[in-house]
This record gives sequence, C-alpha cells and structure tokens, in this order.
Amino acid sequence: MNQSARSASTHFRAALGAFATGVTIVTTRDSAAADVGLTASSFNSVSLDPPMVLWSLAKDSLSLPAFMECGHFGVHVLASNQQALADRFATRGADKFSGLTVTRGPDGIPLLSGCSARFQCKTAFRHQGGDHVIFVGEVVAFDHLELPPLVFHSGRYAIATPKPESASSSWNVTEDSSSSFSQDFLIFMLGRAHYQLFLRLRRELEQHGLAEGEWFVLSILGAGTRRTLSELDELVGCTGTRVTYDQLAGLAAAGFVQLHGAYDGDVQVELTANGRQAVIELIAAAKAAESDAERHLGVDESRLLKQWVKQIIQDSDPGPPATWREVGN
Amino acid sequence: MNQSARSASTHFRAALGAFATGVTIVTTRDSAAADVGLTASSFNSVSLDPPMVLWSLAKDSLSLPAFMECGHFGVHVLASNQQALADRFATRGADKFSGLTVTRGPDGIPLLSGCSARFQCKTAFRHQGGDHVIFVGEVVAFDHLELPPLVFHSGRYAIATPKPESASSSWNVTEDSSSSFSQDFLIFMLGRAHYQLFLRLRRELEQHGLAEGEWFVLSILGAGTRRTLSELDELVGCTGTRVTYDQLAGLAAAGFVQLHGAYDGDVQVELTANGRQAVIELIAAAKAAESDAERHLGVDESRLLKQWVKQIIQDSDPGPPATWREVGN
Repeated sequence: MNQSARSASTHFRAALGAFATGVTIVTTRDSAAADVGLTASSFNSVSLDPPMVLWSLAKDSLSLPAFMECGHFGVHVLASNQQALADRFATRGADKFSGLTVTRGPDGIPLLSGCSARFQCKTAFRHQGGDHVIFVGEVVAFDHLELPPLVFHSGRYAIATPKPESASSSWNVTEDSSSSFSQDFLIFMLGRAHYQLFLRLRRELEQHGLAEGEWFVLSILGAGTRRTLSELDELVGCTGTRVTYDQLAGLAAAGFVQLHGAYDGDVQVELTANGRQAVIELIAAAKAAESDAERHLGVDESRLLKQWVKQIIQDSDPGPPATWREVGN
Repeated sequence: MNQSARSASTHFRAALGAFATGVTIVTTRDSAAADVGLTASSFNSVSLDPPMVLWSLAKDSLSLPAFMECGHFGVHVLASNQQALADRFATRGADKFSGLTVTRGPDGIPLLSGCSARFQCKTAFRHQGGDHVIFVGEVVAFDHLELPPLVFHSGRYAIATPKPESASSSWNVTEDSSSSFSQDFLIFMLGRAHYQLFLRLRRELEQHGLAEGEWFVLSILGAGTRRTLSELDELVGCTGTRVTYDQLAGLAAAGFVQLHGAYDGDVQVELTANGRQAVIELIAAAKAAESDAERHLGVDESRLLKQWVKQIIQDSDPGPPATWREVGN
C-alpha cells in the first residue's frame, strides 16, 4: 500500500469508527484441540428464521485456519465490566485463556461466562469479503443476561446509556410539578441533591456534635497530613464555608484535633485518635448515604455522574481564592 | 412459525439486542427512479483493502427489488440528533424523503446530509444469509463528521459516552490533589458545584439586592401562579432554606412582589411587573452561568447529568416535609 493509499485507509477506518458497535470475543478450537479466540466488533445479526449471525475475520489472521477447519464457533457479547477481557483477546500472542474458566460447546469450542449474550454457532456460510472472510453461523444455542454493554466507538471504549428524553417526564417529585425553576436549573438541582444527601448525614454529625464545615475539616485531616488553618480555610472555602480559629479550638476542646504552635492562620492542626475514629464512622455513613442515593444508577453511570460534576466544577472554578473571595465576601 | 418457535424468536431477538450498534439509513433508487431508503442496524465494516462494508435486508422487504436491481447504495451512519430521521425511515409506507434535501450519488442514489459518516457503495456481493440477503458494498466515496452517534441497544435508542476511567485522572484542580474527601464524595462535589455556580449568579443577585433564598422564591413565582407563604416555604425548603413572612415583606417593600390577605402562612404572594423583569434577567444570568459551566459537556451529556441528579434527588428524598423538617430542625 503506498503512502496515499495508507492515508486513505486511515480516513476510512476513522469513518467506520463513527458506527458504534458492541464488542465480542469469538472462540473456536483448532485441529490440535487448542483453544483459539479473538476480539471482534464486526459481529451483527443476519437472520431470525433460521437464527443466524455473522462476523468477519482478516484473511491474514493467524486464527483463520482454526475457524476454517472447525465447524463451530462461539460469539460472546461483552458486558461493560469486561474491558480487560476484550484487551486480552485483542493482544496477539497473549495467553488468552490462561486462568479463565471455560465450559465446552459443540466440537469442544471454549465458552466464556459473565457475558451479556453468548451464541453457539454452526458455521453455515463462509463468504467473500475483500481482505476478510465473512463467517455466517447458524445459532444452535444462546444465553442472555441483562447487563450493561461494552461499546466501541471512534477507536475507544464507551458505555451506552438509554437516550435521555427531551421532556422532563422522569421528574415526578410531586411538590415540584408546578414550579418551572426546579425542573430547569442545574444550580437548583445541585443544591437540592447536596442538601438532601447532607440531611442523611446530619443525624450522624449531630451525634458527634459536628456541623457540616467541621466535618469537611475532619475529612481533610483524615488524609493523614497536618494542616494549617489557612490551608484548611482554602480547601473548605470552595464550598462556601469558612474555617476559623474558634472553630478549630472547639474541635480541639471536643477531642477531635490537636493544635500546635501559632494562634493564627499558621496554627498546625492534626487529628487525634478519637478524631480519626469519628472520621472513619462519618465516611462510612456518607458512603452509605451516597450508595443509597445512587441505587438506581449503574456503576458506569455513577462514575460518569461524578466525572461530569467534576467537569462542571473545573469549568465554573472562579480561580485562585484571593480573587474569588472578593466576589464571595 | 408455531407458538414455541415464536417465543424462541422473541428470546433470540432479545439476545441479539445485547449487542449495541449504531443506526444507519441505507438508500438506493428503484428502476422507476424513485428514491428508496430504510433504517438498518445490521451494518458493519468488512474489508479495508478494498474498502468494503456490509448490511443485510430481509428477503420479504418491499425494498429488496430496488436494492437487487440498482448497482449502488448509500449508507448513512446517524448522529445522536437524528433519531427522528431513524424513526421516519423505519416506518413502512412513510413518505420518507419528503422535505429532505438530497444530493445524488452514483446511479442517482439519494444521499442525506448531517450524518456522522456516509458511505457510497457499489454492490460487490449479495450473499445468502437465511431469511436475509447480505449486501457487501465496495466503498467508492465516503464522508465523515465528528458527531456523537445514535446508538441502538436492547430495543431502544441510546447514547454512547467514552467509558469513564476508573482512576480520577481527569481531576486536576490543584488545591484538591492532596485531600481525599473532595475527590471521592458526591456530597462534597455537589455542594462545591452548586456553590461555584451560585457564585457566578451572586453578583447579579447583589445588583438586585437579593439573597439566594429570595431568588428561589421569585423563580417559583415566575411560573405565574400566586403562592402562599406555606407553599413557598415547602417548595424552597427542600434546598435547606426557609421562607419567612419578614422576608416576603422585604421583597414587597423592594417592589418585587405584592402581598394579599393574611399576615401568616396563608398570605398570598405574586410578582409585580418589576419582580417579573428581575426574574427574567436572573433566569438569563443563571442559564448563561450553567451553559458556560457545561461547555465541555455535549447536549446529551448535559441532559443525562440533569436526569441522574434528578434520580439522586428522588432517591434521597427525605419524604413529606412534615417528617423531614423534624430531622432538619
């Protein structure tokens, strides 16, 4: 392929990448009874009656002889949490089946578990497809688990989430149905979600005699490092809460922290053993409140939610404290 | 097909649905020079050299003769905002091309615009595929736009978002790099995002002499209905802010609202013309702050973010105010 053709091929690959696909692992057994498998996104459905699926394999693939010789193959549609498996089976020369529990299908083909769908196929046709062979398989058995799918798009892994509806139909908290502002404003929604999560933590905080700002201070100290008042104030300040010397003295009197040195912004603060115990209990309570509030979001959704809120935080960051405190006070 | 086979077919379709795909519209021209097109998710890439793609069509499709007779077809990989187009071309008997601007490819095949990728193909092979015909096309021309894709999974439309990384690598706000709590806690992140968005609105509020709670009150009244103090307090209460009679009297004195009737929770409150003008200005400012903060999220991502925060709000809702105020006070 000359340089210009190579460049055309790069553009063609990129254009093909615009079509999102699931990710599959296709397996078979070679004539020496060794397990063979590879990651493929070229899978698709073909026929319902008889049930048939297809995928295609490069003619120069080392696995081609096995798929040509064996009369059966297995297609495993990967779930979102199987990215490592996809990477492993995409790596030439990897010991792909090492450590995996496989069961056996027709002709002894290896079958993997934990996939969102699995098709055991009898090769029905092998068709011409340029530099690839198109394998059409008649499905002789299949399994299906309702799992979030692993997706491939534009050369990278993705997750698929049901398309949000443009109307606010999923929003049925009764008291808000007549007020437009709460439905439309992210600022309100963030404030309300924060407040409600905080309510769940409040009882726990009250048992320790702590206010929210004090809990933020203890959490920061929970990372293990001594901090000065100035540092704490800067770290907590981005939530709109200030840290004062009196507050720290109160925490010290209650036995949560020890103060060292100066009586101003330079005072060093560190957790006591009691304080550390309180932090552990409160972190557990906060995590429990979060998990409960996130119970209808999947693992990927929860992670994405945090990623996007972080993006909002970065993109609304008012800059260094010295500048934005002027606005804030 | 008997009942048991029909049921098997339903399960088979569901299992196939586990494989996520993009959505395409495939077009051609029939022997009477009429435009033909349909929605298909059975597309996939086949060969790089020569460049080839495939898709399959049911043998009983009314469009089959056109695709059998014409030597060319066009494949349009749809973008996330083209769901209506997908629905239109999936509807038998619809006047599919009505109102659409089409350009012409080889053999006069109709080409649509605004897609994330488009392939003009010369039919290379028509292969056997059970109750479908597999069309393999050699790509003679293609276009590619970087657009978010429309995805189909488990029988419904979806969006694909790059898979979140498990590490918090995208989180590089310097002041937080050493504090574990801010990175891990949704409660903190929601509070900080809310506070930062509010900071952006604060200057605007100050120009009107308003506090955040007063802005919430005016926003609710902006929906157009009179409200009693009790109603307002209940609506705003879910953010942790209380509404008092004195506050409303202050808003009245400043010319934002008019009070009617009682001097207690039953007092009726409505916006004045001045108040309405202030609400319009503040809503514009809030929307601008949100848009700016969401500038690195796509349209679908912004919608999903709100949907998920709403889910968090629903699932952390402490219940009717009478109950949770006890906790709150």
